[in-house]
Amino acid sequence: MQTIYFDHNATTPVDDTVLDAMLPYFQQEYGNASSRHTLGIVARRAIDKAREQVAASVGVQPAQVIFTGGGSEANNLFIRGAADYMTPANIFISAIEHPCVLKPTQELARRRSDRWTMHRMAVNLSGQVDIDKAKQTMAAHKPGLVSVMLANNETGVIQDVSAVAEQARSHGAYVHTDAIQGLGKIPVEFSALKAHAMTLSAHKIYGPKGAAALIVDKRLLLKPLIYGGGHENGMRSGTENVPAIVGFGVACELAQSRTEETAKHVFQLREHLEHGLIEMGAAIFGAEAERIPNTCYFALPDIEGDTLVVKLDKVGFAVASGAACSSVNPGQSHVLEAMEIDPMLARCAVRISLGRSNHMTQIEDFLQAIKKIVADLRRTSSISI
Amino acid sequence: MQTIYFDHNATTPVDDTVLDAMLPYFQQEYGNASSRHTLGIVARRAIDKAREQVAASVGVQPAQVIFTGGGSEANNLFIRGAADYMTPANIFISAIEHPCVLKPTQELARRRSDRWTMHRMAVNLSGQVDIDKAKQTMAAHKPGLVSVMLANNETGVIQDVSAVAEQARSHGAYVHTDAIQGLGKIPVEFSALKAHAMTLSAHKIYGPKGAAALIVDKRLLLKPLIYGGGHENGMRSGTENVPAIVGFGVACELAQSRTEETAKHVFQLREHLEHGLIEMGAAIFGAEAERIPNTCYFALPDIEGDTLVVKLDKVGFAVASGAACSSVNPGQSHVLEAMEIDPMLARCAVRISLGRSNHMTQIEDFLQAIKKIVADLRRTSSISI
Repeated sequence: MQTIYFDHNATTPVDDTVLDAMLPYFQQEYGNASSRHTLGIVARRAIDKAREQVAASVGVQPAQVIFTGGGSEANNLFIRGAADYMTPANIFISAIEHPCVLKPTQELARRRSDRWTMHRMAVNLSGQVDIDKAKQTMAAHKPGLVSVMLANNETGVIQDVSAVAEQARSHGAYVHTDAIQGLGKIPVEFSALKAHAMTLSAHKIYGPKGAAALIVDKRLLLKPLIYGGGHENGMRSGTENVPAIVGFGVACELAQSRTEETAKHVFQLREHLEHGLIEMGAAIFGAEAERIPNTCYFALPDIEGDTLVVKLDKVGFAVASGAACSSVNPGQSHVLEAMEIDPMLARCAVRISLGRSNHMTQIEDFLQAIKKIVADLRRTSSISI
Repeated sequence: MQTIYFDHNATTPVDDTVLDAMLPYFQQEYGNASSRHTLGIVARRAIDKAREQVAASVGVQPAQVIFTGGGSEANNLFIRGAADYMTPANIFISAIEHPCVLKPTQELARRRSDRWTMHRMAVNLSGQVDIDKAKQTMAAHKPGLVSVMLANNETGVIQDVSAVAEQARSHGAYVHTDAIQGLGKIPVEFSALKAHAMTLSAHKIYGPKGAAALIVDKRLLLKPLIYGGGHENGMRSGTENVPAIVGFGVACELAQSRTEETAKHVFQLREHLEHGLIEMGAAIFGAEAERIPNTCYFALPDIEGDTLVVKLDKVGFAVASGAACSSVNPGQSHVLEAMEIDPMLARCAVRISLGRSNHMTQIEDFLQAIKKIVADLRRTSSISI
């Protein structure tokens, strides 16, 4: 049975072009980029090229790219790295941030010393950060650091990052945006977001796992998370993962050139999908807001999300019941909680995140499959939860 | 021109068996290991298997393995992670540690608050940590944390980790060893080293860049460097780099099965190499001490190391003038400084680190090439530095 993959917000397969670009760096051009011999120089040049590709895809200079081993690391690098350069103050994050922004912020707030005060920016019922409320809270508690994501990984709702950034900057704060779920799905221009730092990740854009970047405004002072040989301009020590970085560069180039086409394609699929789901009585979370075009987060009342995910998996559809990144810690979605969704409905949440290779027949097959599963579940149990 | 690679302490090519094991995880089994569907479960099982392979190669339980994105990260995780759980005290490291142990320790010692006091354990003229001196310093400054490497990356000198650990433990300290340069070259058994934590890395043992591990005694309390989705039992959040972890597992298995054979092979090559170099008047650093069998760190008086590396590269030999990991920050080797080597001689240091695929003809070709280069250099300049 061929899996139909509808979980592109969790991760994506590596694109052929990306893998082809990576392969020579495992066995032929395997040098350590810090070595002075030819093999080292070849590796260094490959990283330089990837740095240019990543930079170009979001409109920055290559020197603004700090490569890391993953998006979580890049987010932690900003939160802890910026905080450790500053006098402890107020740190604002949206209530719907990914755990890799939320948890390091909570950690700042419970340190033995140099303790920060954390504030969560509320979202409205559509899952958008409430700018007016954020403005009021910032006026009462002058922010030092602010982090707000570009697109939420669960709902796909796009946030008004530049509006939050403007408020934050008016108080002299440094602003970060986790743009991992935006890249490749909507145009991402660093300067337009008005942030001082931005996180990107390769494996959500048909690149490899193990490569990501923190894009920084050069005026931002950061302390490294990882000290050592002084790689990445001292900001992230450790032998560079050359094949993954090369793949990341190519993936960014592809993402940039394909964003418009992919966005149109998956939007059409999603329209059809959501039409079918709504006919079945589904609630679509964040539907009133602007969303990245590939993501559909829905609930069928009384059909538990986890059950649905397992049943769909058995008939060959890969979907998520919540954010994959936190499914090792099951529990209610903090995103839906922030949106004040009824906990009973939140337990029914299922996320479908489409990708380039999905097509209309798969959507139709999916709608048929889910109708059958739901009918079976409703027959076997009067209350499915 | 085919490069003859003599820089295996910097990095190694990925073994065929390792790459074959990795390849399916880029495009077929590409799931996020936190996903609940089949693709996720397949990825999770692949990681579980790799964890067993890494654990078995050093005689520990799989639950003792914390996967990280690299050796520098693993070393930083121990230093900062253990320190942040403790009341600031004395931290001891050897004077010849890699920068990714030295620098995070220096950072602990210059923090605004919770500041630690750093002590360097001196080495003798052969590059071995002086156990008696360490014992005395520990008696005067009770250690809380201690880190001593298993084998030095420059000289290859093997350290008496268990002797240092015993001293440290008698004061109640937690002990770490960076075993990156030991694995695959000498037998490495975690329990025999008597440390609470040990760092391993894939790309030094014919595995991929981007995967490493901190092996921990379960009684050791650590704070993570990277907070988020709670991966690696909460110790290292971030989507797992499945292909790299799979490759690391296979590389550990290969390393374990081949250590004896490889050690014998490269030792024979090194004997021949050093015989030839000594005939040319070279000094071999650490030659009096027990060394990992693949490493030869030598100096030809009046022939600058950097010059030799470049000249050798031009005729197809990849060697290092110092630790590759710190060659982005050139300067005198802190290892040779700690060994009290004359700075003029230290500037002439060149490291050759042999690997499985090297053979005797390459050694002979190398000796011929270096003789010619040295003769040319001596002819063109009465003082080459």
